[in-house]
This record gives sequence, structure tokens and C-alpha cells, in this order.
Amino acid sequence: MIGKIFRLVSFGESHGSCIGGVIDGCPAGFQLDSEYVNLQLMRRSPGQSKIVSQRKEPDKVEFLSGIYNGLTTGTPIGFIVKNKDVKSSDYNNLKNVFRPSHADFTYKNKYGIRDFRGGGRSSARETVSRVVAGSIAQQLLKEIGVDICAYVSKVGSVKVIKHYKDLDLSQVDSNVVRCPDADKAKDMIKLISTMQESGDTIGGEIRCVVNGVPVGWGEPVFNKLHADIGHAMLSINAVKSFKYGFLDCDVSSSSGSVVNDVISDISGKTTSNYSGGIQGGISNGNDIYCDISFKPVSTIMKDQQSIDNLGNKILVKASGRHDSCVVPRAVPIVESMMSLVLLDHYLLSKLNVFE
Amino acid sequence: MIGKIFRLVSFGESHGSCIGGVIDGCPAGFQLDSEYVNLQLMRRSPGQSKIVSQRKEPDKVEFLSGIYNGLTTGTPIGFIVKNKDVKSSDYNNLKNVFRPSHADFTYKNKYGIRDFRGGGRSSARETVSRVVAGSIAQQLLKEIGVDICAYVSKVGSVKVIKHYKDLDLSQVDSNVVRCPDADKAKDMIKLISTMQESGDTIGGEIRCVVNGVPVGWGEPVFNKLHADIGHAMLSINAVKSFKYGFLDCDVSSSSGSVVNDVISDISGKTTSNYSGGIQGGISNGNDIYCDISFKPVSTIMKDQQSIDNLGNKILVKASGRHDSCVVPRAVPIVESMMSLVLLDHYLLSKLNVFE
Amino acid sequence: MIGKIFRLVSFGESHGSCIGGVIDGCPAGFQLDSEYVNLQLMRRSPGQSKIVSQRKEPDKVEFLSGIYNGLTTGTPIGFIVKNKDVKSSDYNNLKNVFRPSHADFTYKNKYGIRDFRGGGRSSARETVSRVVAGSIAQQLLKEIGVDICAYVSKVGSVKVIKHYKDLDLSQVDSNVVRCPDADKAKDMIKLISTMQESGDTIGGEIRCVVNGVPVGWGEPVFNKLHADIGHAMLSINAVKSFKYGFLDCDVSSSSGSVVNDVISDISGKTTSNYSGGIQGGISNGNDIYCDISFKPVSTIMKDQQSIDNLGNKILVKASGRHDSCVVPRAVPIVESMMSLVLLDHYLLSKLNVFE
Amino acid sequence: MIGKIFRLVSFGESHGSCIGGVIDGCPAGFQLDSEYVNLQLMRRSPGQSKIVSQRKEPDKVEFLSGIYNGLTTGTPIGFIVKNKDVKSSDYNNLKNVFRPSHADFTYKNKYGIRDFRGGGRSSARETVSRVVAGSIAQQLLKEIGVDICAYVSKVGSVKVIKHYKDLDLSQVDSNVVRCPDADKAKDMIKLISTMQESGDTIGGEIRCVVNGVPVGWGEPVFNKLHADIGHAMLSINAVKSFKYGFLDCDVSSSSGSVVNDVISDISGKTTSNYSGGIQGGISNGNDIYCDISFKPVSTIMKDQQSIDNLGNKILVKASGRHDSCVVPRAVPIVESMMSLVLLDHYLLSKLNVFE
Repeated sequence: MIGKIFRLVSFGESHGSCIGGVIDGCPAGFQLDSEYVNLQLMRRSPGQSKIVSQRKEPDKVEFLSGIYNGLTTGTPIGFIVKNKDVKSSDYNNLKNVFRPSHADFTYKNKYGIRDFRGGGRSSARETVSRVVAGSIAQQLLKEIGVDICAYVSKVGSVKVIKHYKDLDLSQVDSNVVRCPDADKAKDMIKLISTMQESGDTIGGEIRCVVNGVPVGWGEPVFNKLHADIGHAMLSINAVKSFKYGFLDCDVSSSSGSVVNDVISDISGKTTSNYSGGIQGGISNGNDIYCDISFKPVSTIMKDQQSIDNLGNKILVKASGRHDSCVVPRAVPIVESMMSLVLLDHYLLSKLNVFE
Repeated sequence: MIGKIFRLVSFGESHGSCIGGVIDGCPAGFQLDSEYVNLQLMRRSPGQSKIVSQRKEPDKVEFLSGIYNGLTTGTPIGFIVKNKDVKSSDYNNLKNVFRPSHADFTYKNKYGIRDFRGGGRSSARETVSRVVAGSIAQQLLKEIGVDICAYVSKVGSVKVIKHYKDLDLSQVDSNVVRCPDADKAKDMIKLISTMQESGDTIGGEIRCVVNGVPVGWGEPVFNKLHADIGHAMLSINAVKSFKYGFLDCDVSSSSGSVVNDVISDISGKTTSNYSGGIQGGISNGNDIYCDISFKPVSTIMKDQQSIDNLGNKILVKASGRHDSCVVPRAVPIVESMMSLVLLDHYLLSKLNVFE
Repeated sequence: MIGKIFRLVSFGESHGSCIGGVIDGCPAGFQLDSEYVNLQLMRRSPGQSKIVSQRKEPDKVEFLSGIYNGLTTGTPIGFIVKNKDVKSSDYNNLKNVFRPSHADFTYKNKYGIRDFRGGGRSSARETVSRVVAGSIAQQLLKEIGVDICAYVSKVGSVKVIKHYKDLDLSQVDSNVVRCPDADKAKDMIKLISTMQESGDTIGGEIRCVVNGVPVGWGEPVFNKLHADIGHAMLSINAVKSFKYGFLDCDVSSSSGSVVNDVISDISGKTTSNYSGGIQGGISNGNDIYCDISFKPVSTIMKDQQSIDNLGNKILVKASGRHDSCVVPRAVPIVESMMSLVLLDHYLLSKLNVFE
Repeated sequence: MIGKIFRLVSFGESHGSCIGGVIDGCPAGFQLDSEYVNLQLMRRSPGQSKIVSQRKEPDKVEFLSGIYNGLTTGTPIGFIVKNKDVKSSDYNNLKNVFRPSHADFTYKNKYGIRDFRGGGRSSARETVSRVVAGSIAQQLLKEIGVDICAYVSKVGSVKVIKHYKDLDLSQVDSNVVRCPDADKAKDMIKLISTMQESGDTIGGEIRCVVNGVPVGWGEPVFNKLHADIGHAMLSINAVKSFKYGFLDCDVSSSSGSVVNDVISDISGKTTSNYSGGIQGGISNGNDIYCDISFKPVSTIMKDQQSIDNLGNKILVKASGRHDSCVVPRAVPIVESMMSLVLLDHYLLSKLNVFE
């Protein structure tokens, strides 16, 4: 489960009948746009372009409860997204094999049993449920003036240099890699294609920018706003690091006299924003932004040394349909996780003061 | 509160009578070493060396419950650490002032009221309670073979290059900056002293290394082991980023064929450890390690522009006793947060399989 | 959500497409008997006999995840039970009406919106999800020697006098009212039929008896074992009271010298069992038993005064298919709630002692 | 821990240095009356009259954090109440003895260790922390128009017959037994004195009445308002049963045509109130009331058969200072638990509707 007030429980395996979840704690009376949910699912889906996995999944959400006449009723919203293009046979050769840098070994040892088909529960297909819940949260946030936008900021060594304010964020989807810097996008696509051809994979980074969060969201000790955001991002498959604030500068090399953000007026507006919109774990009214880095996909189209479940040395021959770089498809996932955390803290913030 | 089974609630303000907490969910029958708790508190305490804040706090824990004849009884462990060297008058001039990059503004706006004395609840003095609980967790973990060691790996641009395996981690406390690389330690101390003299502050990094975690700790979806560790680290004052695995290499520039960790035997031992000891959110039996970066302390000994609570432009004249670099004192805090998360997941892991 | 380790989230409305839920925290490696789940669902289902509601629901569970080759995998178990015999038109006349002693008024005022069809979320049809999860929990408990049996002990003024040890609990299902005392069962059935004919409804009681819980389950302060059981029972639709121990005697009229349970041997066996198997919130190894009373169903087949959503006085003309007495169908629900709580505390009890 | 938003963690043993707790989630800006807290503590304290335990405890609360200039700051409120009149020597003879119907046996078996002095954690002295937190919650509720009043409604077979509306609830403290019916109070006091003289103990009941809860508090499925109230009451030492609504009538013997509450106007006012102010788990704006029964105190001043920790049959000779009937002192505890639950649901109710 994730969330304290707006809570998501997810379920489902990559090659089971569906991925689904339950959203508990969604306030009543909100007019839900299921088309937006499907749009975000489409942005996450495989098969959408040449540079991603070729599994074909229409990925349309089916709501099972909690909505009446298009409005949320305050009761739990159950939903499923069916798995359609399942080719479990692709995985038969992996039944007793532990793939390098995969969760095969850890699941088997933790639970004594694992559903190996398509990676089972460890597959990033689980994030479908996050996108459903997150894109609902994103709609509620939009209604109160909060805008969330993620984009690919780095693939391999190809990195966007421009400040996010100097990019046209409406252009994120103008290319298949989801980078609003057209020149960099071209280089990224080229790099991913090269990796794809060579059967290799490459890491990347996503930047997420949030505009419109008012002062006062976030619990100041253990559940600092950025700690909860970091937690949510680190729970996405393949994420290895999280950083907020300190845009394109090295945190540990900075000195206080340079990076302190001067408050310029009573609204809390600061002249610089090294803080990344959060001070003491609480939003300060400025833009919130963060950087998330993803490792290269573990499944490569090359033979790899490993062991089987008896400990015998074996050669893993990759098969299945996979991404060479996850970041283009991870953009809506990042937006969704950000939305889940922010909506949760918006709701909590209603309880700050006795009145 | 932090933790699902082994849970800590903390309380207390910087200039209140004490900092304290309650640990709920500590298993019964463990022989507690309160001297180790006090040792970790001393490592965290101000006044311990020239390069840290000169506030003098003896910081001895007083246990109020949950321990009988030196053994934990399974009931909640209440504790306090008294605040002794409180000079609230140092802060009188800050009563109606919002200091740059501090939590003054956000607390005031979130709650409508704030205890400004010494930073109140937003002061890093709150981490005293984390060190008490964390150093208890660390003892339980040690008993089952888990060793946790943190050290300063970077201050400003002075960075330890050596692999942690090539350092003598027993030497972390051989110098006041808590860096086991003696040469780098000298440079770090010099840099901090220079910053101190100029009234400025500097950022830094801590690496935390864990040995002995068996395969199978960590919940595989939202509460991935590294997501919970990241959350705990990001909840420490001044932390801006968290990264695990990918030792000294750039995650997003890596390719799968290079960074996949080959499993070499049935124990799960891998030939490389880019994964940082965790795959699919579950520990794989190899070392867990991570990097945490801290921003420079916001309080500098220089005049700074800001506003007061009426929105008037003012000049903040710093006073009080502060650190020029937080990382030397943050080492036991990082170890404590790591311990809290790992012990919690150790306990959860007992419930993996029906038996 | 209910449960701390073995957790159930439920969703679904009476006249939506299905009732469903997610079980999170079920240990891996358990061989699940879905026929037992369906058996319990059948015992709960409408249309099973003449004395219950005539809505016809086959009520077969469909598992969507978390099970592989018949074994639990440790990952969330999603499930649905379809709603088939939905006659929402029966409820059209109730759209803007607040029925007496129903949740119509409170839902509308809490959420501003309500799905009135069949009672929506407030319908006892929601308990389908509890029976699915509870009957799984019951199976795990059975495997470790815990037997749970509920039966109807009172309908109106017809009350079973015999001690549960003097009844043959294998005969609970030998009659449609689920009372193992054949003579009383006849009287109960007769009474319910009489009420049915007159368009009225009647209250009842269920006793639940648990054998085989070892010493040591239950958290001793806020989550006392009986407090959690009481909470679970009180969350069932129509339940008004809960009592444990003090079999057929008046708690408040008792004196200590009479009702203290003498421990007769080191296993904790007591000569009497007024305690109901729990002392200080922790199981003591003796039988756990409790009594739950249900109010008469609010929907009667008689005209009733009420108001509509504009406040106008109106006459409610009942329609729809309803029970005249809920206790026969509530027997598996009570067993399920008991199972959910006990399994949760069994899992928690593994964490009592450090080892 | 109890509570979802307004949360209490308690700690402390009967003969430790203090009883204490932490309240997390109290909204900021509330002017706290610590005299009211002390008044409620005094009503709970031993030694207040001849009919209760003669242990003398001044029981004054010391707040350690979370309050500034008399106002809550929104940060955790730590507190302690010192144990002063501790006579652990009274308990030396009980070190290895399991008293009948006490928690001695269950604690020892659950945890392998127990602090036997004064009952340790299982002593009702723990409820001090509940009264501190509950009497704060009660103040916040009063501010929004909610009045909570508990009184002794039965001791042994002496039972108040009058409806609570026909009693002058301002007279609860006009006698030492806390019964507002003066005649019944006399009989109760006489009965308790008789039991006291004979070294025996007697059970009792408390009724709790709440006025002013608006429509819409309570979560409709697992955390129904009455389920949470029942849970809280059942977590009080010695409580065996909980019933809400159906004032002085037998739930299971009732028929729907008689006990359905007719809504008379748009405010939700009902002509009768069998529902006890809650329908479908949600408050309906009418009075909430419930009945809680307490068993007789297990410690009697008579020799009793039992076993020691080796299983040898022994004779327990009672000593220590104990109550002959707990209900007079339990009145503020019941009010406190009711307050904790209601305030929690008040806060949750702010999140019902999106706005």
C-alpha cells in the first residue's frame, strides 16, 4: 500500500489475467475523466513506438466501483487493466534460471515460490496500477491548480542542459523519447536505437517539475514532503537515485552563502530555488522539482553467465520483448507517483490547524 | 512515526526540556547496551570537536519504560534526552524573522504558530531520538550478524576515491571528520575550518555500507528495501539526494552489458555489485551500500537579505551556535536510520512464508 | 482496510458489476482450497433457503493474482465475485428517499452523493469480500490447529440454553437457521417465517467458539485480542453489541471470588473459563468465545413514515428482496471476521521475542 | 498506537518511573487547558475516596513538547505522569506466581519475561496516558460543540432505570461512585463497601452519552464509528462487553417495525433513537450512547488456588492496594476513549468531499 489518506493497493502479475488495484480514501464528488487515465496508460504502454518493447497492450482501465454517474462517491475505487498480449512461452526457458540483476533470485529465496512468467509480480507491468491511481490524483491536483510534468532529461551521456523554464514543456510528447529539447531528443533516440541494435540497454534520467503547490504541504519529521516523494520514486522499477532541488549543481560541493534561497516577499517566493520548493520537509510555494535516475534494463539480447536454481552455471539466452531504455515509458509513471504523494499531502494539510 | 513493526515516534523541540521518543514493537528478551546508545549520541553531539557546533550537550539517554533487568520486555520503550545548554536568548532576534533556506517560513505558514527558539521542532536536535532508537536497532542487527558502518566520503570537492573495501572502516573515528581515508580527512578538516573562519558553510556526502543482510529482506512493490532506506535518509535534516548501488559510477550513462551483476553461486554472491545488494526491492545477500548528500548548513555567519513576518525586507544577522558542515555529526544518524529500516524489514521477513 | 499484517481492502457496490478485494500480506507457500471459499460464500449467499432473501447469486470467487499452481505466492491476492441478479429498478422509488434506520441519510450527508441502487456500498453484500478473505485465513488457521465455529444462538426470544460444549457443532448446517440445537432451530425457523409473513423482521445472536489458539496472541494495550475481535464483529452490518467470556452470565453482577479462573497446570488450562480465553488482551490457551447481537433488518414490508431528500414527509413503501432475520446468513461472516483477526495476531505473535 | 489522524502512543509500567505518551497529529493553534487534564486524572486516580484503591498518586501531567505559549504547535505532544507511591515490595511474593484471571501468565508466556511489579504494563495504571490524551481530545471536541459524559449505570445488581435524559448529568460527581441517580448511588456505594469488607470484588457498567456530533462522522465499512468506539472501549482493562443504541432493550428480541427510527426532518432528527446516533457506521446527528460492562477486579483479598512458574500448585495470598469495583474510576477513562475516537473521526470527516 502507498499513501496515508489517498491510498493505493495494487495487485496482479505480468502474465496473469490483469493488473489492478483499489484506491481507498478518494474524496467524493469529483468528476473523473477516464480518458485522461487511458491517455496516461497509453503513454506508459509497450508497443507505442519503435524504441520500446513490442508487447502490444491496449491498456484500457475498467472501473469496478466507487464511481456513480461519473462522480467519485467516496467509497473505494476498484479497477483492472487486462493483460492481453501474454506470451508466457517466451519465458519457459527461464523457469529455473536466475537472470543477472533481476529479481528472480530474490523472489525465489524470499517466498520459496515464484511466478516466473513474464517476471510475475516483479515486472514493471505492475506500474499500470500506479498510473491508473496516479492519473486520477493528477486530475484532482490540477483542479486545485497544481501542474505536474515529467520529461526525459538524460539518456546515456546525452543530457539536457537547459533549465526547465527554458524548455517548452508542452512539447514533451512531440517525440517518442519524451524529451522537450528537440535536438537532444534526436540524439537520445539515436542512442537508444544503437543500443537496441547491439542487443544492449542504457540508463537514463527523468526530471519532474511541479508548479502550483501552495505553502504548507508535508509532514516535517519522518514524512517530509521530499522523503515521501523520494520513497515513491525509488519504488519504481529500475530507479537507483533521487535528488531534489540543487538544479544541475553538485549538492556536496556547494557553500551556504551561494545556495541559500532569499525570500523576496510574503508569498514565500524566493529569488533562487536551490531548495527545490521544500524547506524543512514542507512546501514553500515555489516550484518543486527532482531528478530520478534509472539503471539500464537488466534483460539484454546477449548471452550472459548465471546459475540455475540448483546452483549450476548456465548461459542465459535472452528472449521476450523488452525495452532498451525505460525512461520514455517511465515519464507517466513518475508523474503518477508524484501525484499520489502530493494529493496525499494536500489532504493531510487540511488537518494542520484546528478550526 | 517511522517503521511498520519496529516503530519510532519522536517528540521534543530544540529548546524544550528534552528530546524523546517511544519505540513500539521491539521484541522481548534482548539485552540492551545503553552505553552503545550513549556512544552514538556522543558521536552525534555538538561540542565534540572544534569543527562542529559549540553547544555543549552531555546527551545521555534516560529510559523510562520497556526494560526490566536490562532486558527488553516487549512493551514500549519510552526515553528522553535532556536539553541542557539552551540559550534561547540567542534566538530572540529571530522571533519574527524568516531565515533564508530555513523552515521558519514553512512552519509558520503551515501551523500558524511556531516555536522559534533554537529552530524548535525543525532543529536537527530532533535526530537525537533517532539515534537512541537506531542504536538499539543496530544492536539487535549486530546480534544476527548485520554490520552497519557509515563514513564521510566527501566534503566540498574533497572526495574519497578508494572503494570502501580498500578502506579500514574501523578507523572512521580516528579523526574528527569521520573519514577513514586519513589523507582525505586532513583535507576535509582543513576545508571545514576555512569555511568556519569565513563564516560560511559547505555540503558533504556520507556513504553507508552494510554487511551481513541475508537474502529476502524488503517488500517488493511500494516498500522496496531501498525505497524505505531512501525515505529514511531523505528524512534527515539537510539531505538532498540518495543513491544506492552503482558505486562511483553514473547510473544513467551505464549500459546493461557492463553493469549486470553475475550470480556466481547458490548463495547469491555476485561477481560485481552494481545492484548495491538489492534486486527487485529485496536484499540479495551482497553488501548493501548507498550515498547520501547533505546541503551546506543554511545558517551562515554573514548578513543575509530576507523578510520578517510582515513582509518587510530585513537583514538577518546570524547568531547561535552552528555547524559549518553537518556530515561529521550525521554519521551516527545515517547509521541509525539504516538500522531502523533494516530491523523493521528483518522482522517483516519472518512473515514471508507460511509455516 | 482491516488487519495489520494480513490485510484486506474491499471494494464494490451492491448493484455494481462485482464485489472484490485485495488481500495483502498473505504468507507464501500455502495450498489454497478455493472450494472452501465458495462453500462459505454459498452459506452467506441469498436465495439459499426460504427464510432468507430471494436474490439469486451464485457467488463464485475469481482470483486475479497472488496464486500460482494453487499456492499463495506472497504477493497480493486480488479477487472478485460478480453481481448477477441485480434488479436496480426495484430501488428507483428510493432514489430520493431516506429509509428509516438505513444508511441512506448518513451516506448522502457525508459524501454529498450516494449510489442508492440496492443500498450501494452500505449493503451487506459488501461482506462477500470479507468471506473470501476470511475463509482463506480460516484455512491457514486450521493448518496450525485453530478451529473456528459460529452458530445462531438466539432469534427473537428463542435462545439456546445449552453450553457450547454440550452441542454437536458439526450440526450447525443441519438446518437452515444454522443452530446446532435442533429443537431451538425449529422454533427459530418458525419465528422467522412468522415475521416474514407479517412483513416484519427480527433480531438475533450468534455465538462464535474458537478452539486451539495457543498462549500469546494479542497485543496487550490498544490492540488487545478481544478489542480487535470486537472491532471486527462490530464492523459487520446490523451488529449492535459484542461480549466475550462470561458465558450466559451477567458480567456486571458477578463477583471476583466466583468468576476468577483458576489456572490448573502449566499449559494454562483453567478450571472455569469466564475469561473467554483471553487475559490482559492476550490469549491464554483456553477456548475463545464471544456473542454478537444483530438488530432486526431495517427494511420491512410495511409502509413507514420518513422524509425525502428535500425534507418532505413521505411514506416509504418497501420493495426489493430482503431477509427477515440476518443471523443465518451472518454465520460465515462472523467466522470470517474472527479468522481475519486471529490470523493477523498469529502472524504478529511471531515477532514477540527476539531470536 | 490508537488513532489514524489524532494518534496516541503510550508507555510506562505501574512501578516504573512514570507513565507517559506521545500525541501525534493534534492540530495546531488550540489553547490547551492543562487543568482540565489534571481534573480528569484526579477523577481516575486512586486514593480519591474510601471505595477505591488507597494508593496515593497526585497524578499531574508534565508536558514535554508540542505546546508553545499555551497553544498546540502541531508537533508531537510528549508527556509524562510520575509514579510516586510505588510499593513494589508488596509484590515480591508474586514474582513467580500466576494470579487467577490476571495477565501474569499470558505476559510471561508471550514475552518470556515480565515486569511483575504492580502488574507492570498490564496494570490499569497505563490508562493514565489515555486520560491525558483523551482529555485533550475532549477539549477540542467541546470547542466544536460535542459534549461527552459517562456515568456509572450499574454496580452488581443495582441498576439505574431512568433514561439518561431524565437524569441530571451535571451531578455525576456529586457522589463517589459517579452515578447521577442519587438513590441508586447510595445503594451502589453500600454494595461496594460490603464487597470491600468481605475482601471480594464486583462488576459494573458505565453508560457514555454524546451530544452534538454532526451528521457524517465514521468510515462506513471496517472503521464504522461504533466499531472504532467499541474497539477503544474493549481496550480498557476489565471491559468484557460493548453495546450501542437499543437503550435498555434487548437487541435480538426486537422487531424492525418497533425499533426503526423515523427521520422527522432534514436535520436527521429521529423520533426514537434505537440506532444510538449511528446508521451504517456514520453518525446521523442524534445522541450517540453506549454501554460498557466491566468484570469484577481479579485481585481479591481472599486466598486463591493457582500455580507458580514451575507449575506447582500454590495458594495466592493477595496483597497490594486494589479497587473492589473499577467503574467509579473508569468514568473518565471511558470519556477519554470516546474522545480519542470521535476527534479522530472529526478530523477524518474533513476529507469526505473534494473541494
